[in-house]
Amino acid sequence: MQERLDRQLLFLQEVDQMKQIERRSLIMDGSRRENDAEHSWHLALMAMLLFEYAEEGVDLHRVLKMALIHDLIEIYAGDTFAFDVQGNQTKAAREHEAADKLFEILPKEQGRQLRILWEEFDEMQTPDACYAAAIDRLQPFLSNLATNGHTWVEGNVHISQVLARMDMVRIAVPKLWPFVQSKIDEAVRAGYIRTENTSDCV
Amino acid sequence: MQERLDRQLLFLQEVDQMKQIERRSLIMDGSRRENDAEHSWHLALMAMLLFEYAEEGVDLHRVLKMALIHDLIEIYAGDTFAFDVQGNQTKAAREHEAADKLFEILPKEQGRQLRILWEEFDEMQTPDACYAAAIDRLQPFLSNLATNGHTWVEGNVHISQVLARMDMVRIAVPKLWPFVQSKIDEAVRAGYIRTENTSDCV
Repeated sequence: MQERLDRQLLFLQEVDQMKQIERRSLIMDGSRRENDAEHSWHLALMAMLLFEYAEEGVDLHRVLKMALIHDLIEIYAGDTFAFDVQGNQTKAAREHEAADKLFEILPKEQGRQLRILWEEFDEMQTPDACYAAAIDRLQPFLSNLATNGHTWVEGNVHISQVLARMDMVRIAVPKLWPFVQSKIDEAVRAGYIRTENTSDCV
Repeated sequence: MQERLDRQLLFLQEVDQMKQIERRSLIMDGSRRENDAEHSWHLALMAMLLFEYAEEGVDLHRVLKMALIHDLIEIYAGDTFAFDVQGNQTKAAREHEAADKLFEILPKEQGRQLRILWEEFDEMQTPDACYAAAIDRLQPFLSNLATNGHTWVEGNVHISQVLARMDMVRIAVPKLWPFVQSKIDEAVRAGYIRTENTSDCV
């Protein structure tokens, strides 16, 4: 048991670095950037409180576990800004390498189970993963609503990018889509999301 | 539905303040204090990864929900240092007043359910609440091990206080007690926890 517990405690110490992985989003009073630990907590709480809008068959217990671990690989791979085209080209390779390194700290079977759960989240092919991914998009969306569209303005983001990013909400949590759609419309009217066609729009 | 969703989103924005409630514990590299959102995430992940040591009959799904909400009332009541004798005399009254104010932001039935879950955690009378409370003590304990006993040294804490605080691990997760006991012994030998009898020891 001692070696097993030692590995688990080492893992829990290693992932403490989540508290220092800075994201693009601000905390909602706009005073500073949010980190991955804060984001993961807020996302998990959000998945719990908005669960009544999930489609039938979603298992909240599995979603909460996914929410808690979904960004752990960023302690080695770093946070990739959702609207960073170049960064997203290398994201998958960087994150899979990080997963190899991270999950092997744990006892073998436990590390394997966690990696499988992370891969399920990452691939977004199951109802649980799609609900978790939708809320993972909704959490920074709410931060943007509270901070005058901070990451949209900073990233000079085009509406086509926002719609592509938020499409998982339309697909996986359609009951929340009218809210998201109306807030995107408001953000466009406020000038936080650009709509003109330029050669670099995605 | 719109008024219901508005209340839920308002609640999710209000609790964003968890990211600014500073605790006594440091993050594990010792560079700054930890906040309540980070603590709640780390605690929930810890409850998940160490679940094999829980006693039979503990429901991890309920424990994860408790972990996510257990400190929300601190956005109004503030964090009370575990070893602050005076602060702990007023803690219950302050926290119940905060709960009244906070949970009524939500739709009535949802707020009531969350408050009941928080009270269950707070009263530590069920297997789920006791496991959650034990891990809630273990999380800052691990921070102290990683930071030369930071809060023990800063608070000039006596071993009797540490033993009283950690007793929930002995009771609720006895399989982890030998580890905790041995680390307390080490911290005493290192001089991080005081053992001499003085008139102000508790």
